[in-house]
Amino acid sequence: MFSHAAVIGRGRAGGALAARLAERGVLAAPGATPDLMLICVPDSAIAEVARSIPPGPWVAHVSGATPLAALDPHTRRFGMHPLQTLTTSRGPEQLDGAWAAITGADAGARRHGEWLAGTLGLRPFVIEEDQRVLYHAGAAIASNYLVTLFRAASRAFERAGAPPEALVPLMRRTIDNDFELTGPISRGDWDTVRAHLAVLQKELPDLEPLYRVLADATSR
Amino acid sequence: MFSHAAVIGRGRAGGALAARLAERGVLAAPGATPDLMLICVPDSAIAEVARSIPPGPWVAHVSGATPLAALDPHTRRFGMHPLQTLTTSRGPEQLDGAWAAITGADAGARRHGEWLAGTLGLRPFVIEEDQRVLYHAGAAIASNYLVTLFRAASRAFERAGAPPEALVPLMRRTIDNDFELTGPISRGDWDTVRAHLAVLQKELPDLEPLYRVLADATSR
Repeated sequence: MFSHAAVIGRGRAGGALAARLAERGVLAAPGATPDLMLICVPDSAIAEVARSIPPGPWVAHVSGATPLAALDPHTRRFGMHPLQTLTTSRGPEQLDGAWAAITGADAGARRHGEWLAGTLGLRPFVIEEDQRVLYHAGAAIASNYLVTLFRAASRAFERAGAPPEALVPLMRRTIDNDFELTGPISRGDWDTVRAHLAVLQKELPDLEPLYRVLADATSR
Repeated sequence: MFSHAAVIGRGRAGGALAARLAERGVLAAPGATPDLMLICVPDSAIAEVARSIPPGPWVAHVSGATPLAALDPHTRRFGMHPLQTLTTSRGPEQLDGAWAAITGADAGARRHGEWLAGTLGLRPFVIEEDQRVLYHAGAAIASNYLVTLFRAASRAFERAGAPPEALVPLMRRTIDNDFELTGPISRGDWDTVRAHLAVLQKELPDLEPLYRVLADATSR
């Protein structure tokens, strides 16, 4: 569908996507006329970059929450958000097994987005334009706040004299077990929950609201 | 150190521990005199079970937050908490790679707990008696509330029309990447954070406090 894709921006996303497109033989060579301009710049810069692209090629962005209107004035356009936490210390293989959210105004645009995702090694699904922010909020909860949980738990461990790295096999197995809930709340053991809250209030008081809100959400 | 360990209670923990002790050849056979009574019953029943054990063998519990005093009147005693989320659908292999928190009143008791952990395939570390509740609160944050994050993110995904299973490779990689923070907060993109809060307030208002508390904790 595309044979000469140009990648604008080489941060976490742009670096991995360009490397994978090169592997697949569809990265635009210098001097070639791109048939896809893939904008991988920070969200706040997408609209300006899009406006600077002369009409002609397809134009896409890889942002989770940014609307398609940011790609004005282009009409052959789509969004393809790789649902993965990307790091510059890994290569294109970090796309393998991840999913991608595709948004397009019509079936043709979505089909182009799906083709791109598949070519990159991503599993596409379609998200409606007006659902992108909610979708992206879910992704942030799952990924970014997982970091926050580890940091909070690590602080409790360090204060208690336990090694934070011991949390890692526990967290991995929680995922492996299909998120089966164990622990005090699953047993209805509210004495232990109250004891946790009391010790956090005393030792790490800034973690007490976090524990409380999560306990409430867990028990609903 | 022990050659005839008896396991009392065959729930998630007791089942896995008994199976592993049997594999290691140290599970007490019927009729044998145990040299260790390993209490694997619910926390609220530990003290009563301990009191019912005639003096003689070592006595231990596998609870995270329960004090050693629950093992009264026994004095040769320790706590060994396997730091893992255990399920009845797996066998003793689910202990491999996990850590265990050992508590004992003296070096001899701790040494016995460490021996037991090592025999079970667990990596022991010592926790002081008065730090057990804080340690256990950390474990609950890391494991139980990871389930809660997945449930919350899945609700956002379902409402947005995205497949919740797409969250799994994202969450696994977050761990693989040593909990490196990405996403809007890492970029200082507060417009996106505010957009997330606004859409949650509208679509899934019970998740808005959870998102807010976690955003606060992440940005500190």
